[in-house]
Amino acid sequence: MGAIGERLRVLGLTLPPEPVMPEGVELLFPMVHVAGRRVFVSGHGPQNPDGTLAGPFGQVGAEVSLEEAAALARLTALSMLGSLQRALGDLDRIAGWGRVFGMVNAAPGFDAHPAVINGFSRLVLDVFGAAGGRHARSAVGMASLPFNIAVEIEAELFLAG
Amino acid sequence: MGAIGERLRVLGLTLPPEPVMPEGVELLFPMVHVAGRRVFVSGHGPQNPDGTLAGPFGQVGAEVSLEEAAALARLTALSMLGSLQRALGDLDRIAGWGRVFGMVNAAPGFDAHPAVINGFSRLVLDVFGAAGGRHARSAVGMASLPFNIAVEIEAELFLAG
Amino acid sequence: MGAIGERLRVLGLTLPPEPVMPEGVELLFPMVHVAGRRVFVSGHGPQNPDGTLAGPFGQVGAEVSLEEAAALARLTALSMLGSLQRALGDLDRIAGWGRVFGMVNAAPGFDAHPAVINGFSRLVLDVFGAAGGRHARSAVGMASLPFNIAVEIEAELFLAG
Repeated sequence: MGAIGERLRVLGLTLPPEPVMPEGVELLFPMVHVAGRRVFVSGHGPQNPDGTLAGPFGQVGAEVSLEEAAALARLTALSMLGSLQRALGDLDRIAGWGRVFGMVNAAPGFDAHPAVINGFSRLVLDVFGAAGGRHARSAVGMASLPFNIAVEIEAELFLAG
Repeated sequence: MGAIGERLRVLGLTLPPEPVMPEGVELLFPMVHVAGRRVFVSGHGPQNPDGTLAGPFGQVGAEVSLEEAAALARLTALSMLGSLQRALGDLDRIAGWGRVFGMVNAAPGFDAHPAVINGFSRLVLDVFGAAGGRHARSAVGMASLPFNIAVEIEAELFLAG
Repeated sequence: MGAIGERLRVLGLTLPPEPVMPEGVELLFPMVHVAGRRVFVSGHGPQNPDGTLAGPFGQVGAEVSLEEAAALARLTALSMLGSLQRALGDLDRIAGWGRVFGMVNAAPGFDAHPAVINGFSRLVLDVFGAAGGRHARSAVGMASLPFNIAVEIEAELFLAG
């Protein structure tokens, strides 16, 4: 087991299986696309342990509380790590994080997007450390997200040279 | 004619001319910006054959149907290929796609963004093939888009080394 | 003083200090993240000379006028240059701009996002010149932004090799 795998074990974290999409949904792209040393990560949402998308669903600030949304952002980080594990074979191949784009399905007037996406960033920093998990970030409010998920996050990472 | 140009011919696809913006609009950036091997593509919208922005205009799920929006996403792919052709001279210089960011001008409650942006991805895969057109993707709902277009897509590609 | 610093002086531009966030806000990421030659810039908003976030706050097309929003986009460029100066030590290390993603906190029906983000692009071009400041760009409408700022912009640049 690699260092990141061991770190996940110590933290008691389990990565979810391949995302299970709602019936009839066709995804024409991979969740992770590696090109040279660059790792492009498609938009991920929170997953349940069975792979399905996790709720509560709806807009943060209305149907979904700030605390629930931060927990969903944390689940989104686990979803992304699961995809990276499957695509790369070994999370130790990750040399660093580049950019994190955090999208919140936000009710009108909601303005605490950073606190939501901190649920994602905190998990990445816990697992990869302050240097290895360091990333640029935006956290912003979308009018809507696929399947009415409350949080979606895309990212770019890079592999060791 | 290169391989991609030939493929476009076989598929019966015609690329639109340079985008024609609404009167008074000043764009301070190129539609495609090449830096080394990286190809940054500015946000593109659907174009009519005369270069103007294509409708129907408005929010998907309200003024624009899902089927119309998927067709607009397909037109957006053709618009982007037109810009790439003009910027690169030859589409065969494209070694691969990196990231596609699909933005849907979405009515409240709309949740089928992936089906809309599939109109873009399908065309890219048809033209470049499963390997050459492979890309990471997000498809999300914006509160509004310039000139009230229904779909806008930005991307990054890369050139052969 | 480097060439860009001299250019800022000639233009009479002063860069704001480190952003001062509203009380209780925890940012788990740097405003600029350098990885090799790549410079990932986190989402920036407009700053007052004392470092706090600048208003007017709210949605462009409602509480904030187009002209005010373009001025806020210009302030956002100055904020970003301040972060880059602190992260890089010398703005002359910047070899070029890649991508600019301009996000407007937009009232329903607003459709002039490009005119808003032109306030950012114009300043970048004034400071870095037509070649050095050239960038790909999208300008789109968000449902909401952190702390109800009217404009937020993220970017990627690169360093000399």
